[in-house]
Amino acid sequence: MSQAQSLDALVRALQRLPGVGVKSASRMAFHLLQHDRDAALQLAQALQQAVQGVRHCALCNTFTEDEICPTCLDPQRDAGQLCVVETPADQAALERTGAYRGLYFVLMGRLSPLDGVGAHDIALRRLFERVAQPPPHEVRELILATNFTAEGEATAHVITQLLKTLQVKVTRLARGVPIGSELEYVDLGTIAHALADRR
Amino acid sequence: MSQAQSLDALVRALQRLPGVGVKSASRMAFHLLQHDRDAALQLAQALQQAVQGVRHCALCNTFTEDEICPTCLDPQRDAGQLCVVETPADQAALERTGAYRGLYFVLMGRLSPLDGVGAHDIALRRLFERVAQPPPHEVRELILATNFTAEGEATAHVITQLLKTLQVKVTRLARGVPIGSELEYVDLGTIAHALADRR
Repeated sequence: MSQAQSLDALVRALQRLPGVGVKSASRMAFHLLQHDRDAALQLAQALQQAVQGVRHCALCNTFTEDEICPTCLDPQRDAGQLCVVETPADQAALERTGAYRGLYFVLMGRLSPLDGVGAHDIALRRLFERVAQPPPHEVRELILATNFTAEGEATAHVITQLLKTLQVKVTRLARGVPIGSELEYVDLGTIAHALADRR
Repeated sequence: MSQAQSLDALVRALQRLPGVGVKSASRMAFHLLQHDRDAALQLAQALQQAVQGVRHCALCNTFTEDEICPTCLDPQRDAGQLCVVETPADQAALERTGAYRGLYFVLMGRLSPLDGVGAHDIALRRLFERVAQPPPHEVRELILATNFTAEGEATAHVITQLLKTLQVKVTRLARGVPIGSELEYVDLGTIAHALADRR
């Protein structure tokens, strides 16, 4: 507790950010009020504008300010390929590679029963509807690009099961040895996968 | 870069918080927009109210919403003792001990030439003026409670030099072995201090 109620309220509000405890929140509040009040006001405005303006793309479910996001509207992209990712950050990583010219579907999460995240908390139903659309919105190939963690693998597995009734080819990003790595330091599961999937 | 300008603006604004890089900022923005828009609006409001309401106590320089903070106004406290701390968080730690009933002076920083923080960036001049006040605001004892880091020690040293011309007793928090610690694991400098200051 400090000498100012509004300072205490600010520390409590900052603690609702993920990964921020009471010590970090106090340090942030001190920094903003002592050294950078401009940044505080700018952050307040950015928060309000984002909450007001950001919604989900009706097609791919990513964050956007429009009904349909620019990527989904891009006529240059191959509408027959749909890459399923967990978050907009994963989508951005794939985009930065420049190696993919299809469309995306953003789950906005991954199945994680231990954290209480079930099938209804991520956009699985919307994904099914998206894939089941008749031509010309037909999806030829669904590329599963969920993370290679336990939760991401489980999510990919559930999606595969879910789409079995639909006539769509389902693929998964290749598992293998990362570029620049020495075999000695790569975990054994990865090497085993790379061996099995050699080409 | 995402599909939404206001989302990018939010990520940039979050990066101005201390200790928050682009990855943490993206994770925070995703969490707020996907799972907790309430928290985002609450944080925006808290930021605005704190920037508007929080200022420095005219006597002790801590954060407060009033001209003079409640601690300085408290008639129960010993106005003859002044404890100099770096930040309101340090002041709060001392208050929680319940062992001090004097007043405070909060520097709002510490001397750190390597970070470009000089004597004019912390409230040294105001401290001098505060201590130089005539009776009945006379300060009998100044307790230096800056941190026991290189910067905190340097700040304490500079304050001692600064106040040499004034007739005020200057003390420093005792250095010694922390409660609950085993000597084997305490650093040698601390043990040496504890030995020299034995009582």
